[in-house]
Amino acid sequence: MQVNIVKIGGGIIENEEQLSLFLASFSKIKGAKILVHGGGRLATKIAADLGVETKMVEGRRVTDNEMLKVVTMVYGGLTNKKIVAQLQKNGMNALGLSGADGNLIKSHKRQHATVDYGWVGDVDEVNTDLLQTLLNSGIVPVVAPLTHDGQGNMLNTNADTIASEVAVALAKAGVEVQLIFGFELQGVLKDFNDKSSVISEIKPDSYQSLKSEGIIADGMIPKLDNAFSAISKGVKAVNICHALKVGQAVEGNSGTKIIS
Amino acid sequence: MQVNIVKIGGGIIENEEQLSLFLASFSKIKGAKILVHGGGRLATKIAADLGVETKMVEGRRVTDNEMLKVVTMVYGGLTNKKIVAQLQKNGMNALGLSGADGNLIKSHKRQHATVDYGWVGDVDEVNTDLLQTLLNSGIVPVVAPLTHDGQGNMLNTNADTIASEVAVALAKAGVEVQLIFGFELQGVLKDFNDKSSVISEIKPDSYQSLKSEGIIADGMIPKLDNAFSAISKGVKAVNICHALKVGQAVEGNSGTKIIS
Repeated sequence: MQVNIVKIGGGIIENEEQLSLFLASFSKIKGAKILVHGGGRLATKIAADLGVETKMVEGRRVTDNEMLKVVTMVYGGLTNKKIVAQLQKNGMNALGLSGADGNLIKSHKRQHATVDYGWVGDVDEVNTDLLQTLLNSGIVPVVAPLTHDGQGNMLNTNADTIASEVAVALAKAGVEVQLIFGFELQGVLKDFNDKSSVISEIKPDSYQSLKSEGIIADGMIPKLDNAFSAISKGVKAVNICHALKVGQAVEGNSGTKIIS
Repeated sequence: MQVNIVKIGGGIIENEEQLSLFLASFSKIKGAKILVHGGGRLATKIAADLGVETKMVEGRRVTDNEMLKVVTMVYGGLTNKKIVAQLQKNGMNALGLSGADGNLIKSHKRQHATVDYGWVGDVDEVNTDLLQTLLNSGIVPVVAPLTHDGQGNMLNTNADTIASEVAVALAKAGVEVQLIFGFELQGVLKDFNDKSSVISEIKPDSYQSLKSEGIIADGMIPKLDNAFSAISKGVKAVNICHALKVGQAVEGNSGTKIIS
């Protein structure tokens, strides 16, 4: 079995025009596919409307009891169902899932020496049998950035992490997996000031050179470290591309491809 | 295949103690089962917190754009995932679904001569293949009172209606279905002032007598009309029982059983 796993940020979904462009690109991906979506600003906005304060530590949302309710509502309800309904309209048989649904992703509450992140979950296990059952029925799973601990609690989990963990777990189960991270740029750039200077392919060797030359730096390093980690654990390829060109990226016509 | 379909109100889920008692009773049901949950007061409360006004016409929620967002968040996110996570804790492999997920329930926006109910959906079609695939995998589907129109829109649909429509559709697909409506009383009462005067069984003949004698009246009539309608369309039995005794009702040890 071959599967393409696409991760996009929550922001795309909140903008009607961007969502429509994304869906057009996503629909070009043939065969089995999974969509993992982020959360984003809508949770912050609804939390504010409900009088729940948003606290971020190193880019991660601190998730207390009230914030957990907000992200469960927004990611698992509003955002997830909006995508599912739109995919259905576009002829794709989408089915939304949190990590609790069908025991898809079990995690444990993050333990950190100095920061209490609250209800934030680090992934322990992905139920690949469920995904394969759904994919074999022609369903497109749409995964929200929520997991569960098996003790009755939902947990807030980063969408990039979910996409990588699902990809690695499916690869270990013998599936040929391509992982596509959609973001706001056209790919990994050779020159940050030239948005068209996309590096089409990076292998472990060239990654080391690009880093030592300072061409790849800052926020791009953790993204690529994650990509190479997924590759080293059996994922066949990782694409980093513009969120509205995921379909083209799968065909090798857009973005940056990371291979071993 | 045999399936028990249980419908409970949203209020049960919002109370930790009641939820725990309900789960204990629901876990007694052996074999394939489906849970359909209502929405309820939590949506009204969160709508109020967000400054969205709740309008009811003849007991039905008028669902404008903003209220649709609230019910999608609350029913599809908060309430649904709370139940799913708790069922997982109790060893049942629950999987939450709205009508959009896997194209489970397609509906159309209600047309009414005098009232604009907004985004309220009347059911057209239930995807029984999906339910049977999930049930055959040992999964317990947990259905939120939301449907979709296939045009990208979510719709708000009454949970009693969803339970009946799912039951009738599965019966038509050759499944032996028992439908259990959990509510706040022990069953259909012979004497409303005596909460223990439960009528254990009602058939079409005895229903006519009970109505003509005035023993069954008011709010109980639409409930029983719905039950007999489901029976006439192939559902094997309908139970009306206390929400915390659904497990006992399935075994015939609680509530009122409606049969043909």
